[in-house]
Amino acid sequence: VSEAAFLERLRSILPAAPAGEVWIGDDAAVLAGGLLLCTDVLAEGVHFDLAWSGAADAGWKALAVNCSDVAAMGGTPRAAVAAVVVPPDRPGLADALSAGLMEAAAAFGCPLVGGDTVAGPTLVLTVSVVGTAPASGAVLRGGARPGDTVMVTGPLGGPRAALEVTRSGRTPDPDGLRRLRRPVPRLDLGRLAAEAGATAMIDLSDGLSTDLAHVCRASGVGARIEADAVPVGPGATLEDALAGGDDYELCLTLPEPDRLAEACAAAGLPAPMPIGVVVEGAQLLLAGPAGEQPLTPLGWEHTVP
Amino acid sequence: VSEAAFLERLRSILPAAPAGEVWIGDDAAVLAGGLLLCTDVLAEGVHFDLAWSGAADAGWKALAVNCSDVAAMGGTPRAAVAAVVVPPDRPGLADALSAGLMEAAAAFGCPLVGGDTVAGPTLVLTVSVVGTAPASGAVLRGGARPGDTVMVTGPLGGPRAALEVTRSGRTPDPDGLRRLRRPVPRLDLGRLAAEAGATAMIDLSDGLSTDLAHVCRASGVGARIEADAVPVGPGATLEDALAGGDDYELCLTLPEPDRLAEACAAAGLPAPMPIGVVVEGAQLLLAGPAGEQPLTPLGWEHTVP
Repeated sequence: VSEAAFLERLRSILPAAPAGEVWIGDDAAVLAGGLLLCTDVLAEGVHFDLAWSGAADAGWKALAVNCSDVAAMGGTPRAAVAAVVVPPDRPGLADALSAGLMEAAAAFGCPLVGGDTVAGPTLVLTVSVVGTAPASGAVLRGGARPGDTVMVTGPLGGPRAALEVTRSGRTPDPDGLRRLRRPVPRLDLGRLAAEAGATAMIDLSDGLSTDLAHVCRASGVGARIEADAVPVGPGATLEDALAGGDDYELCLTLPEPDRLAEACAAAGLPAPMPIGVVVEGAQLLLAGPAGEQPLTPLGWEHTVP
Repeated sequence: VSEAAFLERLRSILPAAPAGEVWIGDDAAVLAGGLLLCTDVLAEGVHFDLAWSGAADAGWKALAVNCSDVAAMGGTPRAAVAAVVVPPDRPGLADALSAGLMEAAAAFGCPLVGGDTVAGPTLVLTVSVVGTAPASGAVLRGGARPGDTVMVTGPLGGPRAALEVTRSGRTPDPDGLRRLRRPVPRLDLGRLAAEAGATAMIDLSDGLSTDLAHVCRASGVGARIEADAVPVGPGATLEDALAGGDDYELCLTLPEPDRLAEACAAAGLPAPMPIGVVVEGAQLLLAGPAGEQPLTPLGWEHTVP
């Protein structure tokens, strides 16, 4: 079964969360008092490959993707713990991982405060982050309403294109490769989006078409995306941008996009780009020169038994 | 290098924790506002073996050992997240793990609120727990003072003995096997110990001799343990009790052991047992019929590169 199905199954046996809390099913769990908690596991050969990513990059990424989950709630990360499985025959790996974790911790204001480690056959890096929700409340996936504008915070598809080009032995676009190796969570933009009344938000880890489908399903709505409006990263195609994976930009919906644009301008941040609109129904549509066609989820689906 | 050395190295490159916070080096990190955060990784073949532990047991244990870290601070667990690497060719494993996690979550009042999963070659289970420190402040490892009584909350060595007997193909003591498979964190006793003025506390995951050495080093003291007073679990020897590993009882120091005994009696809980005294210096001594001898750390040392 896919990862989504596994977590769905876990959710199905969980007791209901108490009022005001959100358990499995969003980017991070929301606990009473606005505490956020999330975890992500990165495995060598699945999420990164030391052929194109240094061990320090892997350490950075493990912390970054958790902070990206916190960003997608409009929150602020507070502290991280890291658990590492390190093959015993690879000296220096633990040092490089630690260095990358520390660099990311400093960059995102999320100190690494604890850890655990064990020897094992393959490199596995699990980071968990605790954070704080915005005063207005965490932005969930389920609040998108028909008429809301759909926005993304940056160009998409670059990491996917860079990965494919690297695997084929050619030289990837440097921006795409940098984003693939060292994604930067959109913490400031996430906070501004929450303040500007974002109704739903998700981080783009599995690709726009897949992640937007999560938002639509959770919100009970559909969306129409304008193909021309989707920002395509350097070296990438529209298909890369839609199928994506590893973008770590935010996708959000909100009724007053101008309000967010003004807040971004005041903060000296690039404004998120409108790419479409939330509609009634359940369908995702891609509107292009040849008319509308269904936008099926094209992105990453993790497979586990 | 050993796990302790790896974490020591990580600590050496960490910035100093702000006043009132404790980062790497105790059972759990302590953050401002009395928030506790910890993580533990369990790997098949290292921390458990499905030859003697069901997958549901492994799920239980992953949550239990984290709650034990919270207990060792005198704290109360609040929520957990789990990240799982599951081999793709073993159907049903993820279900069993989930079931064990859920049973432990219900037993310890620590709901599982999120997770992540990926396919990989070996089963790895990382759980992280957020908790709350007691009102009097988290009990650290570094507060033991000469004259304090050293206490443990239950019989030791049973899990080690059960593991050895099982590996040799014989039938282990059922109590030892149960503790090995499904340890129960001493949350109530940890809280009572904090209230009764415990000066230092640690959970016995790596063996009494090793874990007590951690307390002594952090506190800048020594200890003298009475061999006759060490509670030895059914099926175990004194050596098992000292070298231990996987006991998940608490070891604590405090100036007024009677106060804790009274609190335990009032709460209907078995009182921790005195096993020795904190002394000046840095030496751990074991006092037996033949006099005193140095007690060297005999317990588990995880090895990673």
